[in-house]
Amino acid sequence: MGNPKKTLWGGRFSTNLTSESVAFTHSIEADTRLIVYDIWGSKAHAIMLAQQEIISDTDLQEILRWLCKAEEDYQNGTFTLDPNKEDVHMNVESYLIDNVGIELGGKLHTARSRNDQVLVDARLYIRDEILTIQRGISTLCDAFLTIAKDHVDTVMPGYTHTQHAQPISLGFWATAYVSMFLRDQKRLQSAYELANTNPLGACALAGTTFPIDRNLTTKLLGFDSPHEHALDVISSRDFIAETLFALSLVMANLSRLSEEIIYWTSYEYGIAVLDDAYSSGSSIMPQKKNPDIAELTRGRTGRVYGALIDLLTNLKGLPMGYNRDFQEDKPPLWEAFDIVKSCLGILPNLLKTTEFKTERMSELVNANFATATELANYLVKKHQISFRESHEIVGWLVGELVENERTFTDLELTHNLLKQKDMDIPIAQLKQILDAELAIQNNQSLGGTSPTEVSRMIDNFEQQLNEMAMHVSSCQTKIDDAYKESQRIVKNVLKGSAEPSVGE
Amino acid sequence: MGNPKKTLWGGRFSTNLTSESVAFTHSIEADTRLIVYDIWGSKAHAIMLAQQEIISDTDLQEILRWLCKAEEDYQNGTFTLDPNKEDVHMNVESYLIDNVGIELGGKLHTARSRNDQVLVDARLYIRDEILTIQRGISTLCDAFLTIAKDHVDTVMPGYTHTQHAQPISLGFWATAYVSMFLRDQKRLQSAYELANTNPLGACALAGTTFPIDRNLTTKLLGFDSPHEHALDVISSRDFIAETLFALSLVMANLSRLSEEIIYWTSYEYGIAVLDDAYSSGSSIMPQKKNPDIAELTRGRTGRVYGALIDLLTNLKGLPMGYNRDFQEDKPPLWEAFDIVKSCLGILPNLLKTTEFKTERMSELVNANFATATELANYLVKKHQISFRESHEIVGWLVGELVENERTFTDLELTHNLLKQKDMDIPIAQLKQILDAELAIQNNQSLGGTSPTEVSRMIDNFEQQLNEMAMHVSSCQTKIDDAYKESQRIVKNVLKGSAEPSVGE
Amino acid sequence: MGNPKKTLWGGRFSTNLTSESVAFTHSIEADTRLIVYDIWGSKAHAIMLAQQEIISDTDLQEILRWLCKAEEDYQNGTFTLDPNKEDVHMNVESYLIDNVGIELGGKLHTARSRNDQVLVDARLYIRDEILTIQRGISTLCDAFLTIAKDHVDTVMPGYTHTQHAQPISLGFWATAYVSMFLRDQKRLQSAYELANTNPLGACALAGTTFPIDRNLTTKLLGFDSPHEHALDVISSRDFIAETLFALSLVMANLSRLSEEIIYWTSYEYGIAVLDDAYSSGSSIMPQKKNPDIAELTRGRTGRVYGALIDLLTNLKGLPMGYNRDFQEDKPPLWEAFDIVKSCLGILPNLLKTTEFKTERMSELVNANFATATELANYLVKKHQISFRESHEIVGWLVGELVENERTFTDLELTHNLLKQKDMDIPIAQLKQILDAELAIQNNQSLGGTSPTEVSRMIDNFEQQLNEMAMHVSSCQTKIDDAYKESQRIVKNVLKGSAEPSVGE
Amino acid sequence: MGNPKKTLWGGRFSTNLTSESVAFTHSIEADTRLIVYDIWGSKAHAIMLAQQEIISDTDLQEILRWLCKAEEDYQNGTFTLDPNKEDVHMNVESYLIDNVGIELGGKLHTARSRNDQVLVDARLYIRDEILTIQRGISTLCDAFLTIAKDHVDTVMPGYTHTQHAQPISLGFWATAYVSMFLRDQKRLQSAYELANTNPLGACALAGTTFPIDRNLTTKLLGFDSPHEHALDVISSRDFIAETLFALSLVMANLSRLSEEIIYWTSYEYGIAVLDDAYSSGSSIMPQKKNPDIAELTRGRTGRVYGALIDLLTNLKGLPMGYNRDFQEDKPPLWEAFDIVKSCLGILPNLLKTTEFKTERMSELVNANFATATELANYLVKKHQISFRESHEIVGWLVGELVENERTFTDLELTHNLLKQKDMDIPIAQLKQILDAELAIQNNQSLGGTSPTEVSRMIDNFEQQLNEMAMHVSSCQTKIDDAYKESQRIVKNVLKGSAEPSVGE
Repeated sequence: MGNPKKTLWGGRFSTNLTSESVAFTHSIEADTRLIVYDIWGSKAHAIMLAQQEIISDTDLQEILRWLCKAEEDYQNGTFTLDPNKEDVHMNVESYLIDNVGIELGGKLHTARSRNDQVLVDARLYIRDEILTIQRGISTLCDAFLTIAKDHVDTVMPGYTHTQHAQPISLGFWATAYVSMFLRDQKRLQSAYELANTNPLGACALAGTTFPIDRNLTTKLLGFDSPHEHALDVISSRDFIAETLFALSLVMANLSRLSEEIIYWTSYEYGIAVLDDAYSSGSSIMPQKKNPDIAELTRGRTGRVYGALIDLLTNLKGLPMGYNRDFQEDKPPLWEAFDIVKSCLGILPNLLKTTEFKTERMSELVNANFATATELANYLVKKHQISFRESHEIVGWLVGELVENERTFTDLELTHNLLKQKDMDIPIAQLKQILDAELAIQNNQSLGGTSPTEVSRMIDNFEQQLNEMAMHVSSCQTKIDDAYKESQRIVKNVLKGSAEPSVGE
Repeated sequence: MGNPKKTLWGGRFSTNLTSESVAFTHSIEADTRLIVYDIWGSKAHAIMLAQQEIISDTDLQEILRWLCKAEEDYQNGTFTLDPNKEDVHMNVESYLIDNVGIELGGKLHTARSRNDQVLVDARLYIRDEILTIQRGISTLCDAFLTIAKDHVDTVMPGYTHTQHAQPISLGFWATAYVSMFLRDQKRLQSAYELANTNPLGACALAGTTFPIDRNLTTKLLGFDSPHEHALDVISSRDFIAETLFALSLVMANLSRLSEEIIYWTSYEYGIAVLDDAYSSGSSIMPQKKNPDIAELTRGRTGRVYGALIDLLTNLKGLPMGYNRDFQEDKPPLWEAFDIVKSCLGILPNLLKTTEFKTERMSELVNANFATATELANYLVKKHQISFRESHEIVGWLVGELVENERTFTDLELTHNLLKQKDMDIPIAQLKQILDAELAIQNNQSLGGTSPTEVSRMIDNFEQQLNEMAMHVSSCQTKIDDAYKESQRIVKNVLKGSAEPSVGE
Repeated sequence: MGNPKKTLWGGRFSTNLTSESVAFTHSIEADTRLIVYDIWGSKAHAIMLAQQEIISDTDLQEILRWLCKAEEDYQNGTFTLDPNKEDVHMNVESYLIDNVGIELGGKLHTARSRNDQVLVDARLYIRDEILTIQRGISTLCDAFLTIAKDHVDTVMPGYTHTQHAQPISLGFWATAYVSMFLRDQKRLQSAYELANTNPLGACALAGTTFPIDRNLTTKLLGFDSPHEHALDVISSRDFIAETLFALSLVMANLSRLSEEIIYWTSYEYGIAVLDDAYSSGSSIMPQKKNPDIAELTRGRTGRVYGALIDLLTNLKGLPMGYNRDFQEDKPPLWEAFDIVKSCLGILPNLLKTTEFKTERMSELVNANFATATELANYLVKKHQISFRESHEIVGWLVGELVENERTFTDLELTHNLLKQKDMDIPIAQLKQILDAELAIQNNQSLGGTSPTEVSRMIDNFEQQLNEMAMHVSSCQTKIDDAYKESQRIVKNVLKGSAEPSVGE
Repeated sequence: MGNPKKTLWGGRFSTNLTSESVAFTHSIEADTRLIVYDIWGSKAHAIMLAQQEIISDTDLQEILRWLCKAEEDYQNGTFTLDPNKEDVHMNVESYLIDNVGIELGGKLHTARSRNDQVLVDARLYIRDEILTIQRGISTLCDAFLTIAKDHVDTVMPGYTHTQHAQPISLGFWATAYVSMFLRDQKRLQSAYELANTNPLGACALAGTTFPIDRNLTTKLLGFDSPHEHALDVISSRDFIAETLFALSLVMANLSRLSEEIIYWTSYEYGIAVLDDAYSSGSSIMPQKKNPDIAELTRGRTGRVYGALIDLLTNLKGLPMGYNRDFQEDKPPLWEAFDIVKSCLGILPNLLKTTEFKTERMSELVNANFATATELANYLVKKHQISFRESHEIVGWLVGELVENERTFTDLELTHNLLKQKDMDIPIAQLKQILDAELAIQNNQSLGGTSPTEVSRMIDNFEQQLNEMAMHVSSCQTKIDDAYKESQRIVKNVLKGSAEPSVGE
């Protein structure tokens, strides 16, 4: 890494940092993702400084020219972050100073601090990542809805306690995930809103005596509003915690989906088959076809949980103001973003290419008394006994059948046993009651598994997904528009137009 | 605990649970908090069953009579939960059956399952707890605002890295916490909304064939809407996770406040003094006066974090449907509620009775170059140098003063040193620049520490707190109204009025 | 709770604690478990004080008399802990003072602090709990070894990625858990050793000027040695963290066992059947028989993880010395103890009463190519091809069979397909190669699944368990002996024997 | 990343993985650290295969030649890991096969699986990392001992509850950390022993029918013994959890040291001054000198905690056998290693260059009644009152002095006040009692703060550190010897010596 040089903040320091101090304290890995955001933020800051006559228009022109050049050089690989310059902010400022001299380049940092600047960068980046993840969830939900539409009346066992509970449809199962992920969308939207407020102008912790205009940078950077209270701005990281929490629940849900994929594709269940392109083999066992993608998703859940606990631990007991501990807020979030994005990138395709074995589902649903509740309900409705009595009778019936190694498919035995309890149900009637397909047809209560309800919910969820997509898209548009507006002003300034023409 | 008896669900079982099985599986401790909610939920369910003609009006009357009696007996201590009856639901149903017989009492559980029932109970309880906590946060914020109003221009050192950074006002510090806690309020509000949807009618996981009316129970229980998708209802615990997360951030913030109280009341800081009534002594060291309440608050933070990680661990990798693992969602949340409520119960009084040592604050703010940034800003404004150059000069100046064991209070030396750098500032002028009180007056940027801004923010926060209080109050009213309406119907039914008169 | 009174440490305080302060700070719930240990510790301390002539023999006699009485009164329920007296230490000291007056009772706390005293109590209790848990693990291991001995050659599918991998024996599976839990035993032993050092005499944080004898209390309390460095003693809680970590891994292992129980008893697997006495039913679905005990064990894992993270959070960033935060070290550990003890209390019986379906195991092991590796190995050994080539051929073979919806049980097709790859294996030979029972016979490498190896490991594990049992027993004996010796001295003193006769 | 190719395990697969599947599942980042260990493990495995006549000596020669070449190519940068080949194992095997053909190269994987192979690699790497960290802790302890030796009788306030408690020496403080870190050493040693057992030969999960010799590879790889039970080997990750836990406690301790550094170097405390080379400045506030290294250490604590919770989450509920989730065991551990190593790399130098302000310490220790306990003890010894009475009197005395804004330095007032309580102590005597230096001299109980005890403990800790250093060194030697022996055999084989001469 070479020898550390005098830092830009080193006025009062008699010695330089040792190279080990530099190596220990720099944040270059995490900051590399922030460089374009740091430059955008600096442009907006400079435009505001000129607008407020804190710097001159000529200064602005020169500063913007070199910020543009820095971005260009970064894009073409000739400007990379140097750990000796500690972080992205000092690297960009040094780039400027190295090129235009400290008399001019040294003006950019007027009326700001790295304390508010790093929050600008992080929030601009987080915004983009959240929107990407929201799109990923939409894609996943679409994959579920496709399954749902194809399987509104495909019968399968519904499980509780990992035991057959009642018949449900595969479409009902698929829509349950959509219903769950829609709430993840809302949490991400909350996190987005929390992130999308403007910290710039909080400066070190107390604001500034320069006549800055925080509303202008808010607009130029596409923030929804300024995050006002300067000390709160600098001291708080709840926008990161909330994002990590939203991601943790996304992963919790994905881990559950993964668990189901893993078991459903087991030999024992046999109700789903993964496409070869989304499975892996074994280095030693030639027959193996493993659900590795689902296992890795499940296995990566802990990393996102760990990232959340990392940040919460970080916050515990910190006094107000900026503490360098905050530098560590980024690595866990960056990692969590990467994990969630990659899971959402692959699972929709995995789902789409998975074959569902509907015959096996049907075999299972009839094999283990899944319609017992239907029978109990029937007795209540038609035989004027209370549900608790009916439950007792059907429980006893199941016990007898198990004893005899039979199931409800032995309608005659079922009939005879019921008769012993004075419940005389014609066999044809019994057949209907115990028919899993009819059972799901009849579960018509609001939100139940009947095809009617599932179809209604599919429509409903599609509408919600559309609204969410439009919302995400409008957030994106706002970002893009702010970026374009910033760039337009920059171009105008560079062209030498007398004033930046802000806010026209 | 005595010998476990035949359970109400034991039809198919040939043996009873062993007493160790009962001891291991029951949830009586956690459920005791739920009994009144379970009875309310059962009343609403019974009213709906009668309204939908699933049970008769006479049945309803009898069921309601005994549910009222159960509540009465619970209140007067003659009905307590029996672990042999596993949980609150089975205890209440057994109470009914023991009193009116299974033919009638056995009807209450028609068209519901413990899977949806336990969610009703939990959500009704959580609602109440969240509102209580929101009121507690408001009280805490009021305590901060009182401090803020008294100290809009009390100067103290603002800290970053636990080092003197810039002068701020004590009022600015106090309002920062209000700004932070207002976001906690919003998170709690989100959690409330998530919790306040009606699971009843999801039944085991698939809905039911009985013609239930989920909108009616929604109304009777004061829920905002039904939580529709039955499988999602039964499988999801994100409303608990979100509540625990909101509580975790409350505790993170309280742990930070505690850290500040602990250090501020140390001999070294000496800027705050706790009232004797909110401190503790030592069993061995007679002189000790310790900030135990703050330490305990900080020390209890981990329990709430642990509760969150508990639930997230629980959810990881669970297949859909009800899993008994979910029984364990309640103890961590109950504990977190208790901790947060008790902290919020005591900290406002602790704050109110704390004496702030404003002279010591003033001494500190002048002792260690806190106004260096003001000087740097001045040089930028008046001496036409860039901020980075100005920073370098002031940094060097501080280094020289430290070397000479002086501070800015030695205005002459400061003046002379600056002159060496061609910055000739009259001493009278210097005095003004380096005056901490003037510095905070001038930090007038939006959200800055100036009295103007702090006063503006106090007004703003008061308004937000009022709005939040009104929101909390309207939630409470909705709950109370629903409860009253339920009770009104119950009374009507008990009086023998032909129909429950729902929905008037 | 009534009105708080003047505390024993309140000399310098002008006001009493408010009742809310008392309610917030007391530790009565957690301390109730410690009362007998606190009294034992106080007796040992008093004996030492007399031996060192810090108090007189008469004082000692009186103090011991009333400590015995306090214990008696606690046992018969007439002495209970009062929250107004903050903690167990102040309650016991107050009991003494209330009975013998402050002139004499006030001497007990000479040369000690609650800071070291609470560590004595906690460590004495933790010792007992760890030994109990170690006995519980032994019992669980015995249950596994019983299964193992019965099933040394019962063939079942070994799973990787939840897919059939290779044939193993049920006994091999059962011994794997023993092998794992033996390491848990070692971790618990480490935690025990860490806990079993004597904090008494560290006093507040710095030791004392009284001529105490820490070796004597070490002996009287059955500690292995003094924990010497007073500041380290007071500041450290790693013995609690290490215990919680050991318990966390016990729960991790139990959660895995639970997962296997849950799936093995599913309809789809059908390889294990729980006894009715260790299963639960459903309130609505009459046919259900659920593995609730396994689910609850899995679901309680997070609470122990949460307890660990609670303590780690607590420790983060605490300065040295006693901090009141430490009071919160006990609730998570107590809870973790309770959970682990209850799981270990029930799982051995659950295992013993579980029926393993060996026919179903056999059916499964032959159904899905579990012996493919054996075939690949055979080709390597007999057909002079490399393993990687052999793997490719067998992989292809499996693919073809799957395509044709066949398995290895179709020996003829298998034979013919192999022949296409120039591997001509007589059908009789193939039958042997693909026979799962022969496969496990032949996996004779060290630690492999062959009956020979499993039997050898059973012997080995039994020996290790015996050694561990003897170790646990010797720890218990040391505790018991120390307790008896303390009691013997106490009796002697109470009888009026001139001197306590310590150390004979 | 280019197009994924047919995998070495793909015999039964009809399609290749998609490039997104490859990107999602590969472990190249984490595996890059393992390449040299993978090659060492492969050499040992090949030597064993030849020794057991599973492969021929010629095969061995060729295999070893190319494994050496692979290592060489890796070292000179011409062999890098390709994500399309999934992991380090497949990359190395492919390297071999690409160079010598599948007929020969395909033999290396005989009688092993990636399941045991990855554990070999990980354990070899972890061994090295643990030893490095143990050396780092020793260096840190040396830095503390240097401070301790210089400051055996430097008086400072000992703190409890962050309040002045009793006088201690700076040397006493420094040795407390040594005492704590010595236990971290023991935990790391335990983790090392757990890691240092040989998984090789467990194969997929069940061992193998090939006549392998696990003791030979144990010896060649420097393991202490084989980890025998194959299914346990494959299923367990407690060696990683235990390492992460040991690292978590190291970080907990470092976070506490950091907290103390942060506050001690604050203006308010002013008892320590960091060297400029180990501090940082502010981009905006020219006067700032911040303890960033301590803050970053404290802030990185959560990442290691998070890594632990990550792994525990991963393990929760996993069925036995290899699950791909295990791939995720490495990233958190690698990260934890990096963090702990870097903290241990810099903190000793930071400590060595820190200046302790002994005058300020002395000023503080006399300023706030730190010797009150000494006075209380004196009254007990000389005035025949009980400690509790004495505590009350001294407490009252302190209260009076505080009321009068005096301290013990006002000996006359102190004298007079005591006299009011009939405690007539000559002023000269009082001066001695309240002298902090004398107080520490007299705290001579075992492990107390007296210079005698501190000196004794310094000697004791030095001896323990030496023993630990020798232990670490002997572990290192064993590794080095095994590596050399492996290399010697390799060279012999490459030279064409007829047999590998194992075990001579």
